[in-house]
Amino acid sequence: MNDINYFMKIALEEAKKSDIDIPVGCVIEKEGVILSYTSNKKEKTNDITNHAEIIAIREASGKLNNSRLSSCNLYVTLEPCPMCAWAIINSRIKNVYFGAYNLNYGAFGSKINLNNISQNKVNVYGGIMEDECTKILDEYFKNMRN
Amino acid sequence: MNDINYFMKIALEEAKKSDIDIPVGCVIEKEGVILSYTSNKKEKTNDITNHAEIIAIREASGKLNNSRLSSCNLYVTLEPCPMCAWAIINSRIKNVYFGAYNLNYGAFGSKINLNNISQNKVNVYGGIMEDECTKILDEYFKNMRN
Repeated sequence: MNDINYFMKIALEEAKKSDIDIPVGCVIEKEGVILSYTSNKKEKTNDITNHAEIIAIREASGKLNNSRLSSCNLYVTLEPCPMCAWAIINSRIKNVYFGAYNLNYGAFGSKINLNNISQNKVNVYGGIMEDECTKILDEYFKNMRN
Repeated sequence: MNDINYFMKIALEEAKKSDIDIPVGCVIEKEGVILSYTSNKKEKTNDITNHAEIIAIREASGKLNNSRLSSCNLYVTLEPCPMCAWAIINSRIKNVYFGAYNLNYGAFGSKINLNNISQNKVNVYGGIMEDECTKILDEYFKNMRN
């Protein structure tokens, strides 16, 4: 297992803890050290800003005591929405690795690409462990329908 | 003074308290009752997610104990960036009134329009008390350069 899959696996384990929330997990790492790992907590906290990426960015910034997360890498099981994509771009995170493509609202290429309107660009790699990341989402929505 | 200008004036007063941060103020109101009012606190808190709109949405959701801010109106002195615009759209806020246009990163029409990719649409009215809202930004950036 390479490093990218190693951290995505941790994000996947977090996603599985989402409980009532759409299962999305996120990890931020710098030079091999994990700064934050969390899941989507929107429903649990009654707060639409509590997507996994936003919580992870806040925690990592707090840990580094710096709003700039330069040299950090972010792993997330679902392609970020526009809110999270812009937060990632603004935080100066270096590389983003996402699992499942978000065809409805993905803001790193699937629906729109916010990198296109920003001076600062983040490197984005999609489809990492895509099958596993898609599977937990499919199961969640299947359970919701039943 | 009409109601819209009344609430925008409060947002402007908040913007003036931004201190080291870019002066942006925000108010969320429901049926004439103010739920939250705040300024941009990104630099002050070392957290890029602490734009005025995000803080205001969190506080209003907390007060209503509901992630949906239906029937709420949001007043902000600067056109929201993509992060904030998507948070606003997802929160189901009904009407957004903004002051200055954000030509670089405005996500309600100036640079992009995130309403276009969302099923849920928010009503957006720009240029409210535009001169006053633009003036405090111009003064901030002038001071920064000197």
